[in-house]
Amino acid sequence: MKKIRMGMIGGGIGAFIGDAHRRASRICNDFELVGGVFDVDYERSKEFAVQEGISLDRCYKSVDDLIKAELAMPADKRMEVVAVVTPNALHYPFAKSLLQNGFHVVCEKPMTMTVEEALELEELVKKTKLTFSLTHTYTGYPMVRQMRDLIAKGTLGTIQRIDAQYYQGWINSIIHGTDSRIKGVWRLEPEHAGVSSCMGDIGVHAFNLIEYTTGLEVKEVLSDLNSVKEGIKLDLDGTVLLRFSDKLKGVIRSSQVCGGEENGLTIAVYGSKASLKWGQENPNYLYMLSDSEPTRIFKPAHGYNDKFAEMSHTMPAGHPEGIYEALANIYRGTAKSIRGQAYIPGEFPTVHDGVRGMKFIHSVVQSNKMGNVWVKIS
Amino acid sequence: MKKIRMGMIGGGIGAFIGDAHRRASRICNDFELVGGVFDVDYERSKEFAVQEGISLDRCYKSVDDLIKAELAMPADKRMEVVAVVTPNALHYPFAKSLLQNGFHVVCEKPMTMTVEEALELEELVKKTKLTFSLTHTYTGYPMVRQMRDLIAKGTLGTIQRIDAQYYQGWINSIIHGTDSRIKGVWRLEPEHAGVSSCMGDIGVHAFNLIEYTTGLEVKEVLSDLNSVKEGIKLDLDGTVLLRFSDKLKGVIRSSQVCGGEENGLTIAVYGSKASLKWGQENPNYLYMLSDSEPTRIFKPAHGYNDKFAEMSHTMPAGHPEGIYEALANIYRGTAKSIRGQAYIPGEFPTVHDGVRGMKFIHSVVQSNKMGNVWVKIS
Amino acid sequence: MKKIRMGMIGGGIGAFIGDAHRRASRICNDFELVGGVFDVDYERSKEFAVQEGISLDRCYKSVDDLIKAELAMPADKRMEVVAVVTPNALHYPFAKSLLQNGFHVVCEKPMTMTVEEALELEELVKKTKLTFSLTHTYTGYPMVRQMRDLIAKGTLGTIQRIDAQYYQGWINSIIHGTDSRIKGVWRLEPEHAGVSSCMGDIGVHAFNLIEYTTGLEVKEVLSDLNSVKEGIKLDLDGTVLLRFSDKLKGVIRSSQVCGGEENGLTIAVYGSKASLKWGQENPNYLYMLSDSEPTRIFKPAHGYNDKFAEMSHTMPAGHPEGIYEALANIYRGTAKSIRGQAYIPGEFPTVHDGVRGMKFIHSVVQSNKMGNVWVKIS
Amino acid sequence: MKKIRMGMIGGGIGAFIGDAHRRASRICNDFELVGGVFDVDYERSKEFAVQEGISLDRCYKSVDDLIKAELAMPADKRMEVVAVVTPNALHYPFAKSLLQNGFHVVCEKPMTMTVEEALELEELVKKTKLTFSLTHTYTGYPMVRQMRDLIAKGTLGTIQRIDAQYYQGWINSIIHGTDSRIKGVWRLEPEHAGVSSCMGDIGVHAFNLIEYTTGLEVKEVLSDLNSVKEGIKLDLDGTVLLRFSDKLKGVIRSSQVCGGEENGLTIAVYGSKASLKWGQENPNYLYMLSDSEPTRIFKPAHGYNDKFAEMSHTMPAGHPEGIYEALANIYRGTAKSIRGQAYIPGEFPTVHDGVRGMKFIHSVVQSNKMGNVWVKIS
Repeated sequence: MKKIRMGMIGGGIGAFIGDAHRRASRICNDFELVGGVFDVDYERSKEFAVQEGISLDRCYKSVDDLIKAELAMPADKRMEVVAVVTPNALHYPFAKSLLQNGFHVVCEKPMTMTVEEALELEELVKKTKLTFSLTHTYTGYPMVRQMRDLIAKGTLGTIQRIDAQYYQGWINSIIHGTDSRIKGVWRLEPEHAGVSSCMGDIGVHAFNLIEYTTGLEVKEVLSDLNSVKEGIKLDLDGTVLLRFSDKLKGVIRSSQVCGGEENGLTIAVYGSKASLKWGQENPNYLYMLSDSEPTRIFKPAHGYNDKFAEMSHTMPAGHPEGIYEALANIYRGTAKSIRGQAYIPGEFPTVHDGVRGMKFIHSVVQSNKMGNVWVKIS
Repeated sequence: MKKIRMGMIGGGIGAFIGDAHRRASRICNDFELVGGVFDVDYERSKEFAVQEGISLDRCYKSVDDLIKAELAMPADKRMEVVAVVTPNALHYPFAKSLLQNGFHVVCEKPMTMTVEEALELEELVKKTKLTFSLTHTYTGYPMVRQMRDLIAKGTLGTIQRIDAQYYQGWINSIIHGTDSRIKGVWRLEPEHAGVSSCMGDIGVHAFNLIEYTTGLEVKEVLSDLNSVKEGIKLDLDGTVLLRFSDKLKGVIRSSQVCGGEENGLTIAVYGSKASLKWGQENPNYLYMLSDSEPTRIFKPAHGYNDKFAEMSHTMPAGHPEGIYEALANIYRGTAKSIRGQAYIPGEFPTVHDGVRGMKFIHSVVQSNKMGNVWVKIS
Repeated sequence: MKKIRMGMIGGGIGAFIGDAHRRASRICNDFELVGGVFDVDYERSKEFAVQEGISLDRCYKSVDDLIKAELAMPADKRMEVVAVVTPNALHYPFAKSLLQNGFHVVCEKPMTMTVEEALELEELVKKTKLTFSLTHTYTGYPMVRQMRDLIAKGTLGTIQRIDAQYYQGWINSIIHGTDSRIKGVWRLEPEHAGVSSCMGDIGVHAFNLIEYTTGLEVKEVLSDLNSVKEGIKLDLDGTVLLRFSDKLKGVIRSSQVCGGEENGLTIAVYGSKASLKWGQENPNYLYMLSDSEPTRIFKPAHGYNDKFAEMSHTMPAGHPEGIYEALANIYRGTAKSIRGQAYIPGEFPTVHDGVRGMKFIHSVVQSNKMGNVWVKIS
Repeated sequence: MKKIRMGMIGGGIGAFIGDAHRRASRICNDFELVGGVFDVDYERSKEFAVQEGISLDRCYKSVDDLIKAELAMPADKRMEVVAVVTPNALHYPFAKSLLQNGFHVVCEKPMTMTVEEALELEELVKKTKLTFSLTHTYTGYPMVRQMRDLIAKGTLGTIQRIDAQYYQGWINSIIHGTDSRIKGVWRLEPEHAGVSSCMGDIGVHAFNLIEYTTGLEVKEVLSDLNSVKEGIKLDLDGTVLLRFSDKLKGVIRSSQVCGGEENGLTIAVYGSKASLKWGQENPNYLYMLSDSEPTRIFKPAHGYNDKFAEMSHTMPAGHPEGIYEALANIYRGTAKSIRGQAYIPGEFPTVHDGVRGMKFIHSVVQSNKMGNVWVKIS
């Protein structure tokens, strides 16, 4: 099958997330990276292009240049999709321009800086009918998809409690000065990161995972955020109370100062009949709990899983696939959409997930500012 | 060494918690059960006494009878300590009478129904100088004590986040009618259980564990409780935001409707230098996390532990001791206190822990009633 | 119910295994320790008796003295059962004398030094009809008993492979001189420990667990033992190939020099329909594996378990019981037998398990001596 | 950097191992698949080529055709390396032809059918100085490489015991007729699979892992193999005693009938100072045990690891990479060798590992045939 011609904005030398996107696109084997704007520094951008074997003709100085030059090409050579993997503040303007000029977009999260921008992109996607894929990578794991299917089938009965966590510790060493890493520090600056560090960077993944697996919408949030140390302008830590309905409540706990935690994203959904628990660091294990039956461990590559989980894993049982494969699953879904092939809803997160995420982040920040009060996620 | 003569209120036929207290008292081998009021039904009480080989002379109809008769005995025969293992509402009146009449008391939690009662007991204990031991059993585990020691030594640096959980699922089957157990149902009735089910029964253990291991006091709480189902009068589920100081926040999550969860009490304390995680279901594993070192697993019966942990475990490494031994450790500490022997603070929870617990429960309930606002734990 | 009067040989000050037996006997609450020969040093023996609150009249200088004096007592005061918890070489002579004089016996393993002695004890037990209980403690765990029941019911289909392990590391530090412990060193001396250290002390537990859980008999063994270091006279490490039948083979791996291993006894039984795995260090988890179903985790205190497992655990689900409770379960079964009450086969290991164990140890040692050849366990 | 032109023999439609090789080659991004003989059925081979976007000109009918046609091309177009991913029996003849004609080779294991063939290939590689990479995939995991480095540095002291396991269950369902899969059944036929099923297919991985991580050579083996069921011609199960020296012994346990086991490759190396344990199903966890220190868990993406482990993982800590990334690491090492770049010994398994593997398989089979006697691996 012919590969989809892809460009990339950001993700040049030393950027781990750009590398992840490229690997994922190669794993699923539906894409060919043909050009991009890999770095704000044009020389470094070209250096990167050479290193990757990309024609310097298509290594552009700016997104505007890229759009202009690509549009000048014949349709069968032109970039079809562009992956935006820049710091947060640039997602929105670049995604918008690209959509307006007819390019499909793969976009890192958080999708925008404001809710208004998010709604604008949603409108634009609706209008243009282009594919917009937001890389909430964790939705690409087979057992997350199995969890979604099990819940959709009603296996849990009435859902009674939802508890998600995203704990990391890496900022800890930065704010306490024992680490000289500075690459990540744009995350601590409002102008680059937006209104939130912890919730915007990772809490929103927990939020997305809840809505993705349960199909429910969070209605209201009440948050208590913590900047942890004098001089830090954004939240590095916080807890968010969630309400789904009168009788269904939940909680998101998220922190970047849990020293020693690596990438501790977990979710537990408790129902009247059974419960499900999953954790990102051992992504191939999904636990089903029940009061009357032994706990069951679902794993990929088994006939007892639903089709969606099974098509998201390629190796035989016990051969662990990981996060690159999860992202590749999202790229694969995105490719299907771009090609106009049938795909399962949930194969890739959409612009609507991005809108929900921005509403979550802003409601959480607002709740905290107003003194830890309930704020509706309209 | 001569055994301490012990009585028991409650804990007769079929009562698992009374059985647990007796086993613990036999394991530590410092006590001899000589009498009590084992059941409100005197015939059943006697039946129990016969079964246990306890003289019917000392199987009493009421606590008043017990006190009167025991006081009439010579001091070297008289009961020295009485364990109160009745439903919640009776802890306070019995404990009070017993203390007023010169008996040491071992008391199940929650210690009282109100904060005022708790303060009254605290006053009484101060005045009488009697031993009062509150069985927050989980503080008897060796690795909980090791955690306390590691934190006291400053191993974690500045504490930055605290997260405790206590999830059970057993009420789930009761409220959904798939279980005919009714023994526990007094826990759902305010007149027997007090102002709270979930927080009063189990959330308070999580609270106690936080204060026990960190030596910190929770200053304020904001809670969101959930009765889960129409017709339930008390909370079965809830989340409590915690504030220790301006820059230290935390959370307690507690629920009795997490189907399939058994006795899921966990605690994580995150510091600027290192972090500690412990869970009750695998109580012999204490995890120390750090950004710069491999995660370490502390286990009992090793030279690297502090003395307090080591004296709380008797078997060689790898021979798992469990919850009865944890409770026996508390009984052992209580015995030392009764005998006037030296003991380590923390060998048994005191009346002050009971006061703190009652303040926690009432503040949490108040916060929820007032619309999820911050309430000080004065 | 009236307690059974128990004596003890060995197990005095500092002896952890004697302490374990006493705790277990107190936990099940069927026994009363009334006397014994607690130490070869009579003064230390008396010191221990005082410490335990045992009458010095019944603290004897020798087993012969004990037998003579107890037989002189009226039947309703006389010791009924004696626990033999001495070093290995003394199990046989003491157990024999005790049986010959009408005492029930609880005996530590290995039961004897030779197969002949074991057969002699078996004969004696048959003749006297006394209760003889061999403390293969691990058979007292609820989930081991559940495993036995599941296999007996045919849940696994045809058994195809059996793999048991018993790894410890504690001798490591002794033989490399970084540890000054010497208490255990009699285990390295043939005159005290018998023909084997590793296989006699721990390998035999793995063997027993296999026969206990599967109901199968090992027919032949081929072993390769390792004394690890110059100057060590006994095996500290070894592997034993097992044959149960033409098409069913297995292996026991056992070592005392696996540094860092604590008490790593595990068993896995693989069948044509399903498989079961259990490990002693997390004894409340039994894993059932299958090719077509999610792995299931059986835990105590659930309706899905068989009666034998359920009567072997007293706390609600999620409250971990440990090794003392396992040993107490064996004491409880022993008490039933002494009292002539009905009990389930498997509630305590018998003299026949002791015979099997001795045959195993001697066959393994013989196989190794003869150059790693097959030796029948007749 | 210019990509290395790669061909492939086997691995067409439906072949999971060929797919794995291609994914790995794309992940490391050093290779470009330009042609091959993907299937014995030429039509299916072409179908596959179309599907993969490979020019039909380079989709060959046979390996001979491939060699002839490619050699006719100019050097800067010609295939440089060929991956041989056929059934076992074809590895040797194809690898030999390819080497003789100047192609670098990536070869699936087992490398050949006989030891003689293996030695012949080793000779050929020495003579031609071509790169020969044997895909013992598990050596590509970062924590396996960390284990190798820790052992090489002497962290464990004197090694005292080695225990490796490779348990699978998938053949179970085939031989008991509950599964209609037949793709794998060539593994049960001597003419396709060679002298062994279980040991040749998976036991040899455990053997390789031992020699890879410890740097030691197995000197002698004694095996007991099991065909499990009437009519099966090869071993499906077995245990192999290992001798490394007079005082160092070990064991490999391997089975294809352990129902419910997925891909249970584990290794434990016990030393006088510390021990290391690793398991394939959670490949990012390496456990270091010690008698005097808490167990440590090494994970990728940390400064405490050696360089070799760190260069084998690209994501930040806690983002699990899996088996495709392990294989990609081997492809990366292979690429360095082909390009004449510096690489670390161990970056890819060599023809010598293949020779060792064949010697292991044949010695094990011989030991079993001769009645379970010691056989030297010369």
